[in-house]
Amino acid sequence: MLRAVVTGSVWSTKRIDGLPNGALLEVQVEGGTGHLVAFDVLGSGIGETVLIAQGPVAAAWFPGTPPPVDALIIGSIDNPPAAPAPPARRRTRASS
Amino acid sequence: MLRAVVTGSVWSTKRIDGLPNGALLEVQVEGGTGHLVAFDVLGSGIGETVLIAQGPVAAAWFPGTPPPVDALIIGSIDNPPAAPAPPARRRTRASS
Amino acid sequence: MLRAVVTGSVWSTKRIDGLPNGALLEVQVEGGTGHLVAFDVLGSGIGETVLIAQGPVAAAWFPGTPPPVDALIIGSIDNPPAAPAPPARRRTRASS
Amino acid sequence: MLRAVVTGSVWSTKRIDGLPNGALLEVQVEGGTGHLVAFDVLGSGIGETVLIAQGPVAAAWFPGTPPPVDALIIGSIDNPPAAPAPPARRRTRASS
Amino acid sequence: MLRAVVTGSVWSTKRIDGLPNGALLEVQVEGGTGHLVAFDVLGSGIGETVLIAQGPVAAAWFPGTPPPVDALIIGSIDNPPAAPAPPARRRTRASS
Repeated sequence: MLRAVVTGSVWSTKRIDGLPNGALLEVQVEGGTGHLVAFDVLGSGIGETVLIAQGPVAAAWFPGTPPPVDALIIGSIDNPPAAPAPPARRRTRASS
Repeated sequence: MLRAVVTGSVWSTKRIDGLPNGALLEVQVEGGTGHLVAFDVLGSGIGETVLIAQGPVAAAWFPGTPPPVDALIIGSIDNPPAAPAPPARRRTRASS
Repeated sequence: MLRAVVTGSVWSTKRIDGLPNGALLEVQVEGGTGHLVAFDVLGSGIGETVLIAQGPVAAAWFPGTPPPVDALIIGSIDNPPAAPAPPARRRTRASS
Repeated sequence: MLRAVVTGSVWSTKRIDGLPNGALLEVQVEGGTGHLVAFDVLGSGIGETVLIAQGPVAAAWFPGTPPPVDALIIGSIDNPPAAPAPPARRRTRASS
Repeated sequence: MLRAVVTGSVWSTKRIDGLPNGALLEVQVEGGTGHLVAFDVLGSGIGETVLIAQGPVAAAWFPGTPPPVDALIIGSIDNPPAAPAPPARRRTRASS
């Protein structure tokens, strides 16, 4: 899967049959691999970090005849858990 | 899916069996990932921004035996909605 | 699909079972995405510009059990049609 | 398959149905091809070098309906076998 | 398919079920597209130039349930046929 950040929405009125109704979101893949448009059923918002599955795996997720969808947002990535607080200590000049 | 702009047509008279009759369009993927040739059933024109599905997902869209097509235009991207007009205000010299 | 130019042939005597007899051609993908080796049933020649389908779509084209082939030349790209002749006109010095 | 090094974990509470419970690990592909998130059932740890299978092959490994998983850690790469010991020799000052 | 040169072996003792016993070889794809690990049933050796099929096509080659293998060496590339001998001629000092 790819980590990506949602950057916008895409609207397509003129479309082929079989494309599910739902959100098409533009995402920026982390690490510079470029932009994708992914199908979203989770209500993801702009700025959200998500996981993308690609290829036939994305289409096979839908019930019934697989739609012509090759990228699907499969989850939203939780914020990293807060780092445990460091043990309290006094800073001394020696440590600076 | 990939966002791409149609840049031309491709003609292939000498072709293998099973390739559907239809338009083969050359597209430029946005963001510099290169050129593809995609099958089109929507009558897309040069300069149009489209969405491309790739791989077996593209072939599976066709009824009957999947053809040897690994890229399909699944929709035309609507123009972005006009940005809301900014609140009217007088420009002053101070803002220049 | 990818546009590519045939650059040579590849011979493989030591090969796994199930690889069809036929031409394995080396192709240079247009736009710098690199080299591939594609299966050819069209008798394509060196220097010819072809269309390549990749992945399971290529294997599924063969009758019977899909062979371990993930790139197939699906067509030869015709020469671009001659541009329409410009309207006859006399060239004058002013246009040079 | 790709060689990669595990660099962290990814948590996703808001996720689509059908995604198996299990570890989602962030990996860095060797050779600079970027980051992936792969499903792990082997208990791989940070810093471990693993092998990744991608695409439908990853999803097909799971029993029952293939989940929307397109990258799977299929093995941990053993440490390279210790190089054969060089012939015993006395170190001299000259070698220091 | 990709042309690649075998550069080493990979051992994985801790592995998921369903991975066939056999050689996992590290290969360097020609033209700089990076490293892969491919399954080998041909006894390919280091330095050998091979052809790699990728994706579900690789897994589908195995009898029975497709294993989680997404890259398979499908053949060894023969040495290029010797170039035809140039017409015999005497070398003169001038040509040195």
